[in-house]
Amino acid sequence: MARLLSTSCPLDIASSSRSYYKPSNQGSISLSSSLSLRISRLPLKKLSIYGKKSQRHCTIYTTAVSTSQEAKTEPGTGSYRSSSEASTPKKVMVIGGDGYCGWATSLHLSNKNYEVAIVDNLVRRLFDHQLGLDSLTPISSIHNRIRRWRSLTGKDIQLYVGDICDFEFLSEAFKSFEPDAVVHFGEQRSAPYSMIDRSRAIFTQQNNVIGTLNVLFAIKEFKEDCHLVKLGTMGEYGTPNIDIEEGYITITHNGRTDTLPYPKQASSFYHLSKVHDSHNIAFTCKAWGIRATDLNQGVVYGLRTDETAMHEELCNRLDYDAVFGTALNRFCVQAAVDHPLTVYGKGGQTRGYLDIRDTVQCVELAIANPAQQGEFRVFNQFTEQFSVNQLATLVTKAGEKLGLQVRTISVPNPRVEAEEHYYNAKHTKLVELGLKPHLLSDSLLDSLLNFAVQYKDRVDTKQIMPSVSWRKIGVKPKTVSA
Amino acid sequence: MARLLSTSCPLDIASSSRSYYKPSNQGSISLSSSLSLRISRLPLKKLSIYGKKSQRHCTIYTTAVSTSQEAKTEPGTGSYRSSSEASTPKKVMVIGGDGYCGWATSLHLSNKNYEVAIVDNLVRRLFDHQLGLDSLTPISSIHNRIRRWRSLTGKDIQLYVGDICDFEFLSEAFKSFEPDAVVHFGEQRSAPYSMIDRSRAIFTQQNNVIGTLNVLFAIKEFKEDCHLVKLGTMGEYGTPNIDIEEGYITITHNGRTDTLPYPKQASSFYHLSKVHDSHNIAFTCKAWGIRATDLNQGVVYGLRTDETAMHEELCNRLDYDAVFGTALNRFCVQAAVDHPLTVYGKGGQTRGYLDIRDTVQCVELAIANPAQQGEFRVFNQFTEQFSVNQLATLVTKAGEKLGLQVRTISVPNPRVEAEEHYYNAKHTKLVELGLKPHLLSDSLLDSLLNFAVQYKDRVDTKQIMPSVSWRKIGVKPKTVSA
Repeated sequence: MARLLSTSCPLDIASSSRSYYKPSNQGSISLSSSLSLRISRLPLKKLSIYGKKSQRHCTIYTTAVSTSQEAKTEPGTGSYRSSSEASTPKKVMVIGGDGYCGWATSLHLSNKNYEVAIVDNLVRRLFDHQLGLDSLTPISSIHNRIRRWRSLTGKDIQLYVGDICDFEFLSEAFKSFEPDAVVHFGEQRSAPYSMIDRSRAIFTQQNNVIGTLNVLFAIKEFKEDCHLVKLGTMGEYGTPNIDIEEGYITITHNGRTDTLPYPKQASSFYHLSKVHDSHNIAFTCKAWGIRATDLNQGVVYGLRTDETAMHEELCNRLDYDAVFGTALNRFCVQAAVDHPLTVYGKGGQTRGYLDIRDTVQCVELAIANPAQQGEFRVFNQFTEQFSVNQLATLVTKAGEKLGLQVRTISVPNPRVEAEEHYYNAKHTKLVELGLKPHLLSDSLLDSLLNFAVQYKDRVDTKQIMPSVSWRKIGVKPKTVSA
Repeated sequence: MARLLSTSCPLDIASSSRSYYKPSNQGSISLSSSLSLRISRLPLKKLSIYGKKSQRHCTIYTTAVSTSQEAKTEPGTGSYRSSSEASTPKKVMVIGGDGYCGWATSLHLSNKNYEVAIVDNLVRRLFDHQLGLDSLTPISSIHNRIRRWRSLTGKDIQLYVGDICDFEFLSEAFKSFEPDAVVHFGEQRSAPYSMIDRSRAIFTQQNNVIGTLNVLFAIKEFKEDCHLVKLGTMGEYGTPNIDIEEGYITITHNGRTDTLPYPKQASSFYHLSKVHDSHNIAFTCKAWGIRATDLNQGVVYGLRTDETAMHEELCNRLDYDAVFGTALNRFCVQAAVDHPLTVYGKGGQTRGYLDIRDTVQCVELAIANPAQQGEFRVFNQFTEQFSVNQLATLVTKAGEKLGLQVRTISVPNPRVEAEEHYYNAKHTKLVELGLKPHLLSDSLLDSLLNFAVQYKDRVDTKQIMPSVSWRKIGVKPKTVSA
């Protein structure tokens, strides 16, 4: 595979209207915008990796000299803008930009006139091949997605295909693009995947922890004031018997008081990898002055965002299988194909949830309001709490409205987790920055269910029941037969 | 390098007197012992990795069929002892058994008639070569060490040379030796080493985290009731402004109470790796029922234990350099060679310390009193707290008694850490199990200083000043010139 590739259309004149959030004190956001033109230059060195048909539209080239260097010259002024003068982040690198959250976020940021570069090794698509899984929705290649986005909006998204665990690749991408902010979704993100067998457990921690360390080193070395927006998970906290705060808790103990990192009790090798990341990032903020926001995200549901809805080639993926599918999305697909909703154990497991339209909004808010130099900021990124049983009830009712008979079964819990527990997690910081939540409503459930019905012929019902056991994970590689 | 090697002397009749600790309720320990004979069998397959001279005394062989299987037959009885019947751990695998703490512990356990196997890839010796460092004391090869121990005591220590990150190697070692307890020292253990450059930071986390994950998988797969005794560090806690508890803290928050893992604030990539390990181990105790003890050890000082003092070929290493040398040992060597004691910054940095004779005692206590199935037990393993300034004063006074003029200088702190802070860490659990501490006394300091004077011609004074900066660590590989 080529080491460092960037897609762009040379000699293509693209309009680049820039509008950025300016935070206000009232918890709402205002916009200022300016219109500019950006001319992409011919690449130094062309590489042909497409067939002839594709080459008509687009050339893939190495980006040792990139368009980003030209962006330092403010359009219309000719004056040099140094990175320290830049008060508003303009260039955002989205690592993992081909995934479920990453793709929606990349398009949203591009639509908001951020200059976006996607960094992705596309390994999530490989996982589907290896496990015999597929998205409910048909999804286009990242190259076609980006071309379609350009043809629809005139906006360019740069693409760097490679592995951030390969520091040589990551360095070149950093030096070429010079991001003001990095949004890091680029991790193996499934708890069940991390519990399939030893080698996937190891892969998950190695890939996630080392990848994030490399991103931290790249920021330190190449773009010290770059803001890291890192996707964590609410699962880092586990289910303590006290309220969950946003990253830190003030403890009074034996007559003394300190504010300390909130204790972590993760419950899979995947969730643990995010805990490790959080500790590593916190250290680099303190030692190197890295500015970072850890977004401890809840369970994301939903398919459409304003941007992915613009064209079928921009459609996002939707996972319903037992490895990558998350509770609500999975239930809607089960309802559509007349498969009973699979509640694990007692169903009292309560978590924070959010609409994917809020994921993209939250990331944008974090970018527009960067952490301070040396600050390790933690936001709990979700909008509502539900138990699994509550979700099953909601989906059952919504299904009935569409004429679906929805059944629910309890299946033995493949995980090791409390099935009845206290859960009260704070989530005010993003609201204070201006988040306007899309709450889970009947209409959203209707539309999700409708999508599920629309694509139900694509459902492989063999992928629905849990096949990965927290307790039975072994050292023998687990493979899938045809 | 050969993948799986075990040193033993075939057809050698070794006396193996077994005495084990039995915990009592009074916090003290009593001994029961029996005398037995064990006959080692001829190996299945001999490998020659020595020159002819060595081969006279010893043969290295693969251990697909190991002596350990025979040990199941209780000597003198012929009856089979299944692992579930075994109430007292007998077979201890010491990972990292060639290092400073590991070697002393291996000999101590062997002397106490545990059946010991050392697992080590010997990479600590490679670090010395690569960085141009050396132990103050001359140390023998692990092979000569083990041969000498056998010739002095008649006790066998098995040796498995290999990397625990290589699961195939670790599996074979586990299946061959079938440990009742694993003591895991086998990690890159220097904070400055982890801060030299990006590749060593990555190596440290990858090596330590993946190695420990492999050990956990090996226990789950091959010896579920094996007790993991894992070396953590007091550095996992950082320097919070409240008392440090042993692993857990009970928090009352908004009217509710829970006992949660003590918050972690590690301050180097090395210390962070231990934090990651702790989280991973805690999860596997909960999910798989692993029994584990995390020994959050303080800074170890001292050279001699009863066993290492028996012969010069058993002598332990002593590091005085700025990468591997720890505060007190380093100060003694500096005093001996008339180098000013190097206090980093203000010198108010306070930590827990312990004598290496207490390290070996603590590990033995942890083994003799195993954690319960599913229990993740945390002990703070140190005996006294000192600030760096206090240590400098103690060494200065002890030096004067020996006629040494000891000076102290403050050097710019290469680390990022509080130099004046509250510090009060609990350390009662090991005392409750029977630990009888060797407190830092004048006589110990005298003997340490005397060793330093004895070996002072071996000191390379260029290795004393700190050369690794927490803030300046870069991505470019840092190499050492001649």
